[in-house]
Amino acid sequence: MNKEERYDLGIKTLKKMISDESLNTIGNMKNISPDFWDMIVGFGYGEVYAREGLSLSKREIVTITSLITQGAFDQLEFHIRAALQVGLSENDIIEIIIQCAAYVGFPKACQAMIIAGKVFQEKE
Amino acid sequence: MNKEERYDLGIKTLKKMISDESLNTIGNMKNISPDFWDMIVGFGYGEVYAREGLSLSKREIVTITSLITQGAFDQLEFHIRAALQVGLSENDIIEIIIQCAAYVGFPKACQAMIIAGKVFQEKE
Amino acid sequence: MNKEERYDLGIKTLKKMISDESLNTIGNMKNISPDFWDMIVGFGYGEVYAREGLSLSKREIVTITSLITQGAFDQLEFHIRAALQVGLSENDIIEIIIQCAAYVGFPKACQAMIIAGKVFQEKE
Amino acid sequence: MNKEERYDLGIKTLKKMISDESLNTIGNMKNISPDFWDMIVGFGYGEVYAREGLSLSKREIVTITSLITQGAFDQLEFHIRAALQVGLSENDIIEIIIQCAAYVGFPKACQAMIIAGKVFQEKE
Amino acid sequence: MNKEERYDLGIKTLKKMISDESLNTIGNMKNISPDFWDMIVGFGYGEVYAREGLSLSKREIVTITSLITQGAFDQLEFHIRAALQVGLSENDIIEIIIQCAAYVGFPKACQAMIIAGKVFQEKE
Amino acid sequence: MNKEERYDLGIKTLKKMISDESLNTIGNMKNISPDFWDMIVGFGYGEVYAREGLSLSKREIVTITSLITQGAFDQLEFHIRAALQVGLSENDIIEIIIQCAAYVGFPKACQAMIIAGKVFQEKE
Repeated sequence: MNKEERYDLGIKTLKKMISDESLNTIGNMKNISPDFWDMIVGFGYGEVYAREGLSLSKREIVTITSLITQGAFDQLEFHIRAALQVGLSENDIIEIIIQCAAYVGFPKACQAMIIAGKVFQEKE
Repeated sequence: MNKEERYDLGIKTLKKMISDESLNTIGNMKNISPDFWDMIVGFGYGEVYAREGLSLSKREIVTITSLITQGAFDQLEFHIRAALQVGLSENDIIEIIIQCAAYVGFPKACQAMIIAGKVFQEKE
Repeated sequence: MNKEERYDLGIKTLKKMISDESLNTIGNMKNISPDFWDMIVGFGYGEVYAREGLSLSKREIVTITSLITQGAFDQLEFHIRAALQVGLSENDIIEIIIQCAAYVGFPKACQAMIIAGKVFQEKE
Repeated sequence: MNKEERYDLGIKTLKKMISDESLNTIGNMKNISPDFWDMIVGFGYGEVYAREGLSLSKREIVTITSLITQGAFDQLEFHIRAALQVGLSENDIIEIIIQCAAYVGFPKACQAMIIAGKVFQEKE
Repeated sequence: MNKEERYDLGIKTLKKMISDESLNTIGNMKNISPDFWDMIVGFGYGEVYAREGLSLSKREIVTITSLITQGAFDQLEFHIRAALQVGLSENDIIEIIIQCAAYVGFPKACQAMIIAGKVFQEKE
Repeated sequence: MNKEERYDLGIKTLKKMISDESLNTIGNMKNISPDFWDMIVGFGYGEVYAREGLSLSKREIVTITSLITQGAFDQLEFHIRAALQVGLSENDIIEIIIQCAAYVGFPKACQAMIIAGKVFQEKE
């Protein structure tokens, strides 16, 4: 797999996870640094998410848990939407956050729950 | 569910996840603080892990990811063993760590992989 | 103590710490996940904050320090108000933040000080 | 060096790094806690940044990396401006963020890149 | 207060908190970097811990909480001993750790409790 | 650049930074997960470290700062050695750690200084 094939596989993987509109939004990164955008798509989605051996929905359990644990809440909404897209239910996400409460404490779990609540409400 | 029932459910849940020997080891906590041991078992395993709505194997994906992200490596070995016990494969665990690499960086992922390698080798 | 008694004790503890208005605001959590709200009140305030052996004001020293150290600034305002309610002075809070500066670095201490300054000004 | 000389050296160092306008803005800290302001200027800029043995531009590499790693994004804009002022180029900053991606993961690197992009655009 | 007076006040403050033996041990830092040792004593203990407005025992609540929250367990034993020296009881320390459990999660609280248990046992 | 060329460039970059002996040691990773080893070398060293636009010595300032900030001390010794290899002096490393003290607090800076001291002593 050369660099272009990797990029193409990354875009293909992203399209399974998010809307074209969201893809356009995050694609603005290429105006700041085309190389960094290439790494996000090529490495992140072409080389990591695209791997066999763990489903996209289980990969999103990892992602959401890691974002909550590190307090990276600005990116949580994006990945809660992606998680719902690849097969997790709203209840799965609530359970992930509750499981996190015991492992990272209530402050981060509360903040995650508020963001999840907002995403769920917008989908109705 | 009163406090005793909650404790009993916690022990029952723990027994699905770890050996009696491991349970004895972590049970030493009650010599330092019986109340804290009660919280770990009653709240952690009786109230959180025992919840329906997410399988024990998916809860261990959350736990392992959170431990790696926060750098709590002293407890990772315990939960890799528990994860294998409740149905995750060695390959699942490797994939979780690789997924983490993109989200927490290589240093923590490397350290997790070394610990996983040690657990896998001991099981052979 | 059964689950309901624990919840009631949690609400009673919360009422010592925050206004009815604040309680209503955070109570919105029950619309997202009633179980999680139950854990916050029952476990957090009924089982942890309500414990004897450490005063509410010393518990708030722990809480504020932990929020600053983990960068959970969205919840700091709430707990600075609670801290003032249970007996810490504005000067105590400034000293806690200065002590934190040596332990977590200036960036997080600065951000905490700005939030504290805002709370103090609103109270005047 | 006594306390006043240290403060003066801190102000002198800050003036090499930021505009008078920025200095006025951060100087609002002295209305919340004059002692804390004194520590920021005296210790942070008079005792640490003012040290010989590492250039201001290399000190800003340390600062920017540390802010990204700890997720202290509210202070990143200030230090990206300071970094450009003391001799780092826009491309240097992009490379620092890309290097960070491998060490802290993509979520924090993405957020840093968005903030850098905003600063670069405003300077045009 | 000039630099030497600040250093002397730092040593005086440290002597209230730790044994001469412990002071000798940490003093080895001056063989690696005399300037850094000077900052630890002068800034940390002469300028921060020595401040009026918060007792040494309350400052140690801040310190212990911050160390647990950031996972800096290599320094926890030192500060649990100092905390006992300046007036906190073993039970106070257990309560601080239990309060932390709700705010940082069980993994870090467990690890802190194990270290506390070891210090308590050695003192018997 | 295809996957093999990327791997080869990674090895070439690593050889500028560490001894053959160290390369052998970290190469044990391929026995746990060949794919992960491939990512470390190919992505980490072939795609990130090998980039133009920032010297290897400045990349190591980023790496060392990030490791200290996230508390990844198990990997710090490796990178202090690499930093000395690519042109940083012992004094540069001491200054990086002192700069970190103001940004991440003294506990992590102290631990870093102890590790640095050990590396310096072994080189003598």
